[in-house]
Amino acid sequence: MNYKVPLKDIRFVAKEVLDMPTHYSKFTRGKNAEPDLVDAIFDEAAKFCENELVPLNKVGDEEGCHFDDGVVTTPKGFKEAYQDFVNNGWPALCGPAEYGGQAMPESIGLTMMEMMISSNHSWSMYPGLSLGAIKTIHTHANDNIKERFMRPMVAGNWTGTMCLTEPHCGSDLGLMKSYAEVDDSSAEEGAYKISGSKIFISSGEHDLAENILHIVLARLPDAPKGIGGISLFLVPKFLVNEDGSLGERNGVSCGSIEEKMGIHGNSTCVMNFDEAKGYLISPPHKGMRAMFTFINESRLGVAMHGQAHSSVSFQKALAYAKDREQFRATERKNPDRPADPIICHADVRRMLLTQKAFAEGGRMLNMFCGKQVDISLSPDFTDEERHHAEALLAILTPIAKGFLSETSLEATNLGIQILGGHGFIKEWGMEQEVRDARISQLYEGTTGIQGLDLLGRKILKTRGAAIKPLMELFDEFVGDNRWNSHARRFKKYFKKWKSLTRSVGFKVMRGDMDELNAAAVEYLMFAGYVTLGYFWSRAAIVAEEALEKGDGDADFYQSKIEMSNFYYDRLMPRADAMIESIGNGAESLMAMDEDRFVFLDV
Amino acid sequence: MNYKVPLKDIRFVAKEVLDMPTHYSKFTRGKNAEPDLVDAIFDEAAKFCENELVPLNKVGDEEGCHFDDGVVTTPKGFKEAYQDFVNNGWPALCGPAEYGGQAMPESIGLTMMEMMISSNHSWSMYPGLSLGAIKTIHTHANDNIKERFMRPMVAGNWTGTMCLTEPHCGSDLGLMKSYAEVDDSSAEEGAYKISGSKIFISSGEHDLAENILHIVLARLPDAPKGIGGISLFLVPKFLVNEDGSLGERNGVSCGSIEEKMGIHGNSTCVMNFDEAKGYLISPPHKGMRAMFTFINESRLGVAMHGQAHSSVSFQKALAYAKDREQFRATERKNPDRPADPIICHADVRRMLLTQKAFAEGGRMLNMFCGKQVDISLSPDFTDEERHHAEALLAILTPIAKGFLSETSLEATNLGIQILGGHGFIKEWGMEQEVRDARISQLYEGTTGIQGLDLLGRKILKTRGAAIKPLMELFDEFVGDNRWNSHARRFKKYFKKWKSLTRSVGFKVMRGDMDELNAAAVEYLMFAGYVTLGYFWSRAAIVAEEALEKGDGDADFYQSKIEMSNFYYDRLMPRADAMIESIGNGAESLMAMDEDRFVFLDV
Repeated sequence: MNYKVPLKDIRFVAKEVLDMPTHYSKFTRGKNAEPDLVDAIFDEAAKFCENELVPLNKVGDEEGCHFDDGVVTTPKGFKEAYQDFVNNGWPALCGPAEYGGQAMPESIGLTMMEMMISSNHSWSMYPGLSLGAIKTIHTHANDNIKERFMRPMVAGNWTGTMCLTEPHCGSDLGLMKSYAEVDDSSAEEGAYKISGSKIFISSGEHDLAENILHIVLARLPDAPKGIGGISLFLVPKFLVNEDGSLGERNGVSCGSIEEKMGIHGNSTCVMNFDEAKGYLISPPHKGMRAMFTFINESRLGVAMHGQAHSSVSFQKALAYAKDREQFRATERKNPDRPADPIICHADVRRMLLTQKAFAEGGRMLNMFCGKQVDISLSPDFTDEERHHAEALLAILTPIAKGFLSETSLEATNLGIQILGGHGFIKEWGMEQEVRDARISQLYEGTTGIQGLDLLGRKILKTRGAAIKPLMELFDEFVGDNRWNSHARRFKKYFKKWKSLTRSVGFKVMRGDMDELNAAAVEYLMFAGYVTLGYFWSRAAIVAEEALEKGDGDADFYQSKIEMSNFYYDRLMPRADAMIESIGNGAESLMAMDEDRFVFLDV
Repeated sequence: MNYKVPLKDIRFVAKEVLDMPTHYSKFTRGKNAEPDLVDAIFDEAAKFCENELVPLNKVGDEEGCHFDDGVVTTPKGFKEAYQDFVNNGWPALCGPAEYGGQAMPESIGLTMMEMMISSNHSWSMYPGLSLGAIKTIHTHANDNIKERFMRPMVAGNWTGTMCLTEPHCGSDLGLMKSYAEVDDSSAEEGAYKISGSKIFISSGEHDLAENILHIVLARLPDAPKGIGGISLFLVPKFLVNEDGSLGERNGVSCGSIEEKMGIHGNSTCVMNFDEAKGYLISPPHKGMRAMFTFINESRLGVAMHGQAHSSVSFQKALAYAKDREQFRATERKNPDRPADPIICHADVRRMLLTQKAFAEGGRMLNMFCGKQVDISLSPDFTDEERHHAEALLAILTPIAKGFLSETSLEATNLGIQILGGHGFIKEWGMEQEVRDARISQLYEGTTGIQGLDLLGRKILKTRGAAIKPLMELFDEFVGDNRWNSHARRFKKYFKKWKSLTRSVGFKVMRGDMDELNAAAVEYLMFAGYVTLGYFWSRAAIVAEEALEKGDGDADFYQSKIEMSNFYYDRLMPRADAMIESIGNGAESLMAMDEDRFVFLDV
């Protein structure tokens, strides 16, 4: 079967779990999001995704991108789909009105992004990276630059990239070597010549758009060493004249594209900057801070990559499990046939429900983050409200990115497992989900980096202050639902989270930084399980209330209650194992001398 | 780096953990395995693997197999390597002497198999399947057939396959449709005409050998329905004359080969049987029992597939982690360089040690199984000893197959993770390990099927009798090492295993078969964690004793003790989560009506 956008679940989360209509009524952009209009947008977005992107998903995987002497050609059909996307105005959906955008709330665009990634991850990354580039330029560049570069970006005629990684530095960007020199030949203010080589640049070169704006980290001549000496530049593929027309080709070129495990339809480029003209868009040496506008946006995107693959793999595996007949069920479904559909078997259900828990639970988490993005960006909210939303995002972004990407590895592999041998062959598309999902645990910072960001840079560095807003949200939920069984099951793990944070914090505060590093990934996964537990409890309570009222689709609500039970019964126990493992500390990780890891000489 | 056979660890397990020299002194075949000869065989086997198979691993992945009108061509170099393998007499290593074999103990061949799989999984499956076919023919066919077919198989001039799966039946072989008719045209005793279509036949057609013997499940004309009506046949690709010369092409042909996620160098064939001449080699309708000779052999092979991929991925990731410099370590390794090798960081160590725990722990488990295979097959042991070995194998085969294949998924994905973005691109070979390892959770019965075999068919069906020999082994170990800390850590989990088996058994005995199905996979994984714990405790105690004696490589022994500590500290806690999840039972798995799993209509 082909992927279908799960509109009913998206609307349940938006309207019933997160009450987005009320949220939208509170700020200017939100007022553009009239309920009927949002419904219509989602309907149309779903059609575009199902009709145009889904059919290109396998094509993109099989054909991949082509590289010929610096020119990158995307798989057959990608360009036409992108042209339709632009012609229909989709890129501008959440763009700022002053540059031609439709100024819908960001949360609407993020939900559409889930649909696009689910339909075709590789394709979605071309417009996906533009969104981060637009936000970065809009937030950090001066009006001159914005005037010249924003409009075609918002319209989707140009696309964007983020250029961070170099061959010798990925996670540790302080080692970066790319550099900028003052461009004496140019009369333009803030113009530099950028040189260096960047690798793993997604959508770095392609044939979808007439220009590409690279957002590039490099060092100014007088830069201090390390991470505090990096500045941020805008480097266009084609120079842009003052009147906005395209000028000559800039000194930036694609040296090659990578052969990868998955996302074959997206070009992953080596980009060579050879005295390329660029514009400084951050304060000198404060480029990393500015780049985090892009990085945080992208991390939420990657959280959606993870969630989207879990969702698609679940849909496909479910269709197979209802159709494929093997063995007899405990309670026969087809008494007159020799076997029953495999969905009757408890172990197949265990796999399907695990996929569903991550897919639909992840959707609640991501859409909740989308709501916070809306608040954090709108001047209509008070400073306090905005800071509160930012604080929630600071904690939830690494959790969503790390946890949903890791669980997508499990969910998509379960998708293969449900199909048995048929999952391993290319025909059914299940293995492509695994290969495409695999990048999400890596880019925008590996799970290890997300764990350090969450536990180290966020929680421990602020002595716990950073996690308070989330804990207060949980406290309030538990208090409001004191007698509800779903809330009580959550409460038990919420308490464990607080105590785990205290015990890890205590060790690290004594000065042992290895303890931080030893705990980080499992702490993040623990946080992910409990956070998803919160959303499953919340969904179950919403469903119970709806059932009590007697409105709507009782079966649908019932399924949410059943999911919450499954989640706590069969997945949440994993969180306890993490407490135990973290509690055992760093000692056994650090004991082995590096020469003792392997003995290959006889 | 290229994979190197870890001969030192293999010898540690063989000589020190399992005391194979004493074992070999006890039976006829074993006496062929003089310690010096075994050392020489392993040295030569390692050379063959490193020099001939390793260089073809990436070639095989990139080129894959070619199909042209029924003819399958293997990747460039595969045929030459196979010819060298045959010319050097390797296929005959453990073959029976009466058919030209060298009659070395099976355990020697299994260890060589680990080396071959690690070097080139796809290639290793051509000779690998022959071993199971040889054993099946040798065990079940009459002397006439053996005389005609065994010798070229043992020499490796012909290869074998196992033909079980059909399009509509994989796990549930009772649904099988292929059928056999009496071949009236043939004067040969036991000759039949076999018709039907088989899918997913590994090494089903290729260009390495002059003939292929298919071991085929099909129904006799008067067969009862279901699994009790299946018989086993030998169907050659080319008919074989009485004098052993090749006759005309038989009515069996390859219809197509599959495009797969991994093991591209191995041909996965649709095999069409069209009144193909075949010979009945099982008693009528008792083919499944005979086929289990092949299946059990293959399941041990797949356990090695899992272990081998963990081992290779670990070696490669370790080399990278020692070389790649990112961030500063808590204790600086390179004070005069801007960053330290990533192996200094606790989280990278956590990933490496997890890989190592599965790779080296899995090796102990597999080689222990090899020892039991030796015993079970040799008439020099008493009936009681042979049955004891068979009983251990009956329990350990599904555990090794299920657990080591599942953990290879984790280990090889950690291999990607340690390399970051470099792990996702093809250049480094890490992602090929993931793709090649992925089949091992599927073939020879999915993890779900292994779980049902272990918990249902073996343990619960015998009311626990089947697991007694293993529990006695554990009891003895715990008793012998009463005061040792590694044994005490094991004892805690051994107790939990017994109590978990009782509690699941109690539920199932009340008649709720869904409880069996709901518990099966997690029970298997639990059993795997505890069984590996047994071997890590054993290795640590052997190492402590060696250190006390003061012989040998102290660093090597120290590393085994450190690994045991790591294993219990950081991996064993997962077993507790499984107890909790299994304890929560089947209810939340079975509650949801199948129509409530997804709501795609709005």
